[in-house]
Amino acid sequence: MLDYKLLHALATVVECGGFERAGDELGLSQSAVSQRIKALEIRLGQPVLVRHPHLAPTPAGQRLLTHYQQVQLLERDLRGSLPTLDDQAPRLRIAINADSLVTWWAEAVATICQQEGVLLDLVIEDQDVGLKRLRDGDVAACLCATPQPIAGARCVALGEMRYHPLATPAYVERYFSDGPTTENFQRAPAIVFGPHDQLQHRFMALFGFHSHFPYHLCPSSEGFVRLASAGMGYGMMPQLQTKELMQSGQLVSVAPGYSLSVPLYWHFWRHSGELIQRLTQHLGHIFY
Amino acid sequence: MLDYKLLHALATVVECGGFERAGDELGLSQSAVSQRIKALEIRLGQPVLVRHPHLAPTPAGQRLLTHYQQVQLLERDLRGSLPTLDDQAPRLRIAINADSLVTWWAEAVATICQQEGVLLDLVIEDQDVGLKRLRDGDVAACLCATPQPIAGARCVALGEMRYHPLATPAYVERYFSDGPTTENFQRAPAIVFGPHDQLQHRFMALFGFHSHFPYHLCPSSEGFVRLASAGMGYGMMPQLQTKELMQSGQLVSVAPGYSLSVPLYWHFWRHSGELIQRLTQHLGHIFY
Repeated sequence: MLDYKLLHALATVVECGGFERAGDELGLSQSAVSQRIKALEIRLGQPVLVRHPHLAPTPAGQRLLTHYQQVQLLERDLRGSLPTLDDQAPRLRIAINADSLVTWWAEAVATICQQEGVLLDLVIEDQDVGLKRLRDGDVAACLCATPQPIAGARCVALGEMRYHPLATPAYVERYFSDGPTTENFQRAPAIVFGPHDQLQHRFMALFGFHSHFPYHLCPSSEGFVRLASAGMGYGMMPQLQTKELMQSGQLVSVAPGYSLSVPLYWHFWRHSGELIQRLTQHLGHIFY
Repeated sequence: MLDYKLLHALATVVECGGFERAGDELGLSQSAVSQRIKALEIRLGQPVLVRHPHLAPTPAGQRLLTHYQQVQLLERDLRGSLPTLDDQAPRLRIAINADSLVTWWAEAVATICQQEGVLLDLVIEDQDVGLKRLRDGDVAACLCATPQPIAGARCVALGEMRYHPLATPAYVERYFSDGPTTENFQRAPAIVFGPHDQLQHRFMALFGFHSHFPYHLCPSSEGFVRLASAGMGYGMMPQLQTKELMQSGQLVSVAPGYSLSVPLYWHFWRHSGELIQRLTQHLGHIFY
């Protein structure tokens, strides 16, 4: 059995951002906190914290923290049947794709998070990387486009997000006045979320285009829309995020009638407790 | 002298997302592309690409790519005086803080990027991490809050961004009806951008509060505003990003009259060519 006193010290140091503050919080001296961290590192045979450039957990330390959060979630369920155990807000560490986070996520989970008194610890990752974090025990759940569950985890289909290839009217006039042709794809600067983002490639493949094209890289959903709105490029943007800009005519499609949909799946550990189950049920209802 | 044919192969493999497509692009067989990458790895004594979970450059590979981009920028200046050299759009890899990217950045640089025909490769990093990337040669410029230039680089003050502690009116009524007191800070869920984000701590320190508080972690500027707008918490948000939400009354301050400002500095290598110099001049003018 792990010594949860040590894990609690680690969580407090990370949350407070320092040993001295963590000591204040725990009612311990700074050196007592240090000793607990050291005991953890000896037990583990590797460091759990890095000091530079910021105090932060190592990957091993993060795995311990996520485990600690999961145990807290299970304890929370236990407290439901044993209400005399004292109360403390649980944390839920979730990997989520950026486009969900800037569109439907907050409204979908606000009420249940408030009712359950849960604090979120969100990590932005797309696809495989989010699932790898789940497999590594770095997060308790993952929202992504991959339907294959990993061993020991469950996977629930939530729905899909629709993407349109959008730009300003002036941009479309300049680069796509004669439509989505090979020549236009070769000279019109696109915007791509990151090196693993395949949506732009999938869109161009609809027109038989598989070659090289100029593009800006912008790993922020909102920054992406801002670059497009400033006329810097065109790119695949979620309908949910751009509805108003499309309605007002600030963004228009470079290929009207063409869109792509990306499915969304919710992955979570089978034995992660009732809160995750209720959240899963809630997500299943709300998305449609 | 480096063999730029090899660097070009590396850049093409990364941009095309595979050896076969890169071969098509370069007019080479897949195995010829592989050989060039291998030659680079032998020269360097370490891998430049990882294959799993995605094809991506290693840190060493990324350094080579950034160097390659910088050489392309210098060549671009050369082409200004030797216009017969054939034209190709240069890439500029820049580390930028998330809040700038979702507010003033795109409008500020759209025109100059179009005029100069430059493609951006944006990396979101706050503070020290962005500067570390500059020092490591991973980016050509860095926009952050740190005024100290690193050796060999220049640093220009651009201005500052103002942050207000905002939440929905219902949230303020529920948690801050009697103002920003210690008791309220201890029970009101805050929203914090990431473990290194000190703005929330700085805000609470204005009221002498230095203790533990509940918070959601949300490393997305737009996601942050969404969580707050859904009533999940309060947090420090840029005036530039929330002006309309404040004007419409959807978000209000939990401590009217209190705000914090964060300075913005533009760091870049001294010898990175004329394009960076013109961009720097442009940023110096546009921010005010």
